[in-house]
Amino acid sequence: MLPLVALSVLVAVSPAIAVWPLPRQYSTGTTPLRLSPAFHIDLSGIHGAPQDLVAAVARTSNYLRNDKLQALVPDRGASSGNAIRGAKSLNSLTVSLTTSGKVRSISEEAVDDVESRVESYTLTVPADGSPASLKANSTLGLFRGLTTFGQLWYDLNGATYTLEAPFNIVDSPAYPYRGFMLDTARNYFPVADIKRTLDAMSWVKINTFHWHVVDSQSFPLVVPGYTELSQKGAYSAAQVYTPADVKDIVQYAAARGIDVMAEIDTPGHTSIIAKAHPEHIACFEASPWTQFANEPPAGQLRLASSATTNFTTGLLKAAASMFQSKLFSTGGDELNANCYAKDNATQADLAAQQKTLEQALDTFTQATHAGLREVGKRAVVWEEMVLDHQVTLANDTVALVWISSEHVASVAQKGYKLVHAASDYFYLDCGGGGWVGQNVLGNSWCDPFKTWQKSYSFNPTANLTAEQSKLVLGGQHLLWTEQSGPANLDPIVWPRAASSAEVFWSGPGGDVGKALPRLHDVAFRFQQRGVRAIPLQPLWCALRAGKCDLNA
Amino acid sequence: MLPLVALSVLVAVSPAIAVWPLPRQYSTGTTPLRLSPAFHIDLSGIHGAPQDLVAAVARTSNYLRNDKLQALVPDRGASSGNAIRGAKSLNSLTVSLTTSGKVRSISEEAVDDVESRVESYTLTVPADGSPASLKANSTLGLFRGLTTFGQLWYDLNGATYTLEAPFNIVDSPAYPYRGFMLDTARNYFPVADIKRTLDAMSWVKINTFHWHVVDSQSFPLVVPGYTELSQKGAYSAAQVYTPADVKDIVQYAAARGIDVMAEIDTPGHTSIIAKAHPEHIACFEASPWTQFANEPPAGQLRLASSATTNFTTGLLKAAASMFQSKLFSTGGDELNANCYAKDNATQADLAAQQKTLEQALDTFTQATHAGLREVGKRAVVWEEMVLDHQVTLANDTVALVWISSEHVASVAQKGYKLVHAASDYFYLDCGGGGWVGQNVLGNSWCDPFKTWQKSYSFNPTANLTAEQSKLVLGGQHLLWTEQSGPANLDPIVWPRAASSAEVFWSGPGGDVGKALPRLHDVAFRFQQRGVRAIPLQPLWCALRAGKCDLNA
Repeated sequence: MLPLVALSVLVAVSPAIAVWPLPRQYSTGTTPLRLSPAFHIDLSGIHGAPQDLVAAVARTSNYLRNDKLQALVPDRGASSGNAIRGAKSLNSLTVSLTTSGKVRSISEEAVDDVESRVESYTLTVPADGSPASLKANSTLGLFRGLTTFGQLWYDLNGATYTLEAPFNIVDSPAYPYRGFMLDTARNYFPVADIKRTLDAMSWVKINTFHWHVVDSQSFPLVVPGYTELSQKGAYSAAQVYTPADVKDIVQYAAARGIDVMAEIDTPGHTSIIAKAHPEHIACFEASPWTQFANEPPAGQLRLASSATTNFTTGLLKAAASMFQSKLFSTGGDELNANCYAKDNATQADLAAQQKTLEQALDTFTQATHAGLREVGKRAVVWEEMVLDHQVTLANDTVALVWISSEHVASVAQKGYKLVHAASDYFYLDCGGGGWVGQNVLGNSWCDPFKTWQKSYSFNPTANLTAEQSKLVLGGQHLLWTEQSGPANLDPIVWPRAASSAEVFWSGPGGDVGKALPRLHDVAFRFQQRGVRAIPLQPLWCALRAGKCDLNA
Repeated sequence: MLPLVALSVLVAVSPAIAVWPLPRQYSTGTTPLRLSPAFHIDLSGIHGAPQDLVAAVARTSNYLRNDKLQALVPDRGASSGNAIRGAKSLNSLTVSLTTSGKVRSISEEAVDDVESRVESYTLTVPADGSPASLKANSTLGLFRGLTTFGQLWYDLNGATYTLEAPFNIVDSPAYPYRGFMLDTARNYFPVADIKRTLDAMSWVKINTFHWHVVDSQSFPLVVPGYTELSQKGAYSAAQVYTPADVKDIVQYAAARGIDVMAEIDTPGHTSIIAKAHPEHIACFEASPWTQFANEPPAGQLRLASSATTNFTTGLLKAAASMFQSKLFSTGGDELNANCYAKDNATQADLAAQQKTLEQALDTFTQATHAGLREVGKRAVVWEEMVLDHQVTLANDTVALVWISSEHVASVAQKGYKLVHAASDYFYLDCGGGGWVGQNVLGNSWCDPFKTWQKSYSFNPTANLTAEQSKLVLGGQHLLWTEQSGPANLDPIVWPRAASSAEVFWSGPGGDVGKALPRLHDVAFRFQQRGVRAIPLQPLWCALRAGKCDLNA
């Protein structure tokens, strides 16, 4: 371990490292170094290196060869040509594990309990051409280090170089949960889009894919034993995720250090289930929808019905069993009481059981969550289940705070672990105009657009006591897809979603002015790798750090 | 000509035609009709059909075969299967000119004076399978009619069909100028992106590509005789538009009925010229830029210098001569007086000539515009040249109203022809967050996001007298590209820019609720043709017209 104080001092000297998220501790130098044409990543020190680590090394080698990212300076590095040609060559990166136990794969470690994952690593790149070294206690940590190594290099006429050797990096995440949520129900995304997104997530060390897979509009998930739901509720026979697709996505994610936390939102947001099971849905497509749901079509599970409770528990168990993650979200947002008030079946059930709606919701939730526990899952819920309802939740329940960042303290007061997902900071869909029809001048409900600067300025422990702060697992950006599809997935997400990735890996308090040049690097490197990240500024500005600042 | 009253009555009966922009007069029926596998477009009635018309017919035939757009209804047309299988087949569309003069090409007619272009056509598709008929007085009109014909059809299992035959369409534009502006200076767009955009523009009958080709940040245009500007001022040697590229783009546009109105913004927005000609630029990259320019880098042409005036005139003449259009924009927006106040050279010139800055601007503008007239061009300017400065402009000068739609009446009062380009309705970049650095919570200067509904609600003659209303040539959407590049060109533009295309073709006053289903059709057909238009709603809504309206 390098002395931390010395590292901190060095940071002040060379802030130019382009790694995103910024390593927790690092130093850089001023010596040019290039990758040898024979450069290789050496895994020989790891006996029985798992296949996904071997594959990660191969991908890293590909990026090193093919990124061909020119430095973001006016001459794109040309004036450093002599220095680069005369630089020492790096022949290898030696990868090793610092524990002697059984070697576990990245994929196994990626789905460990969120609080117990080990993602730390140490990366040293000497300036003299002697072998670079990557060490970690876990293959997951090695994967994070490989990701960092892949961001150190630029291209000049085919030479892969840095001007900042030596590098000494000691890194680990500030928070164990760094996520990204995608809604595949409002509009469908082919598996290829999800995989490309998983790759992009891994490049900024995001470790959780919160998959809001179904909702009132469509049910694309093919759940064994419940295939009628997707048969009747998917947008088309082609717009589904089969068990094989899910397995493929889960494996693809895990090999990239990403846990897939799926969600089947209940008891609201379930209208489409009525296509196969009308008996389970109250106020199905009731009109006007504004009285029965936050968006069309209306329809909620008949939570007071024991048949519906059993059906839902079975569905959740079957769906959750498709995923390796310990976490599974049962949703619980935007419950509409009027829907149940107007539903004769629910009213009859409540009367027969002499329960209030809240009591029935408690019974329903306890049943579904018990089902999840039976299959080894830990429940995740939207904030209303903690703040707005009288529901008994297990102590290990995770709450997603979405309505407002101002609700965080209230959730923490209740003592639940929480994930930041506040619409006022992290909703990627805001600011694009209202999508509801016949709404001439309507802008989106969560205006304005959430800039990367806004989310970058987020403080995860604002208004929390030191003890409450320990409840924060991390946070995430979210894409609700009322106005998104494959056409704009990349540009609406990237590079913005990288800003929360850095807040929750490197810790808060970063300066947007210092971050911007590195975020340009993220966007341009993503483009080189086939992800359509948008430019944050005119190229003139991107090539001249600081020159387009407000007071430059 | 069909009786207009009868047509109007029929419109009320069948509002479902998906053509965009909506034809000025049309009727539809309720008879299924399918395209015969042997369907062909017959040009034999036109002796010496120009090559670009033959090519347009080939493209239309390709779209008919390859769009494979399923109807936007819940079952995607499946329940109409029997009706479609039993439908009469259409074997041909007969295309003919209704004038006997010399046949001119689409490309020639597309660059006619904007006020004299003939784009009207008549399209008849009988329900009984007898040949459809497309007639016009111009090949440009025939091209518009082919575009309409290509939007009438859906796919069901390989059958190309409509359920709405017969069609009787009599169409012509409400306004002669329907444009789209792209800025290729803040960020560069490869020729392929521009061509794809031209195709998309033509699909909604946009007829002018306002090409804001250079600006302070980069000079990608290779101008014969002035090649040092792009050599020193392009972002890279690859990020340029050569004379061959320009010719290619101009021809590609013209063959699609689009006039390319280029712009070299002067005397502001010219900082990058200093890279090759420092002698012509005042306050070059002066700091803080906020005092010298509306965005970095600062730099303006030394308008009081006769050498600079001659240089600019020569440059504009050479640049304008690369384009066929009669229109050429000299810009004239956002002139910064402080830049000249602090420029010793300009102050010396003004003193020597005993002129005020405004008098020098007048001399400069008269000289550059006279140069344009020498090469057969008509000047286009941003509104400030009309409203804010004491500049003598030719009567035929066209003003682009951009700062606010509230300035339209003032421009009209001055008697100039005008094009609507107001930031409060038509700026596609608004609402995406501020791009200036170190601006933590800054949103864009022209917040909020301009929804398609907002631009669709625009009234081109608001606050104008009947006489002033005749000055309105039309209008356009605009994309300034501080935060755009190839990565998000399609999704930020489409289908939003189609809304102004309909306002200025079909006329204002359209209902957003009725328009939305047709605009979905535009977005989905664009996607089928390879343009990444975004979904405006969840697919559930797109398949159920009206069900997601505010009061549904």
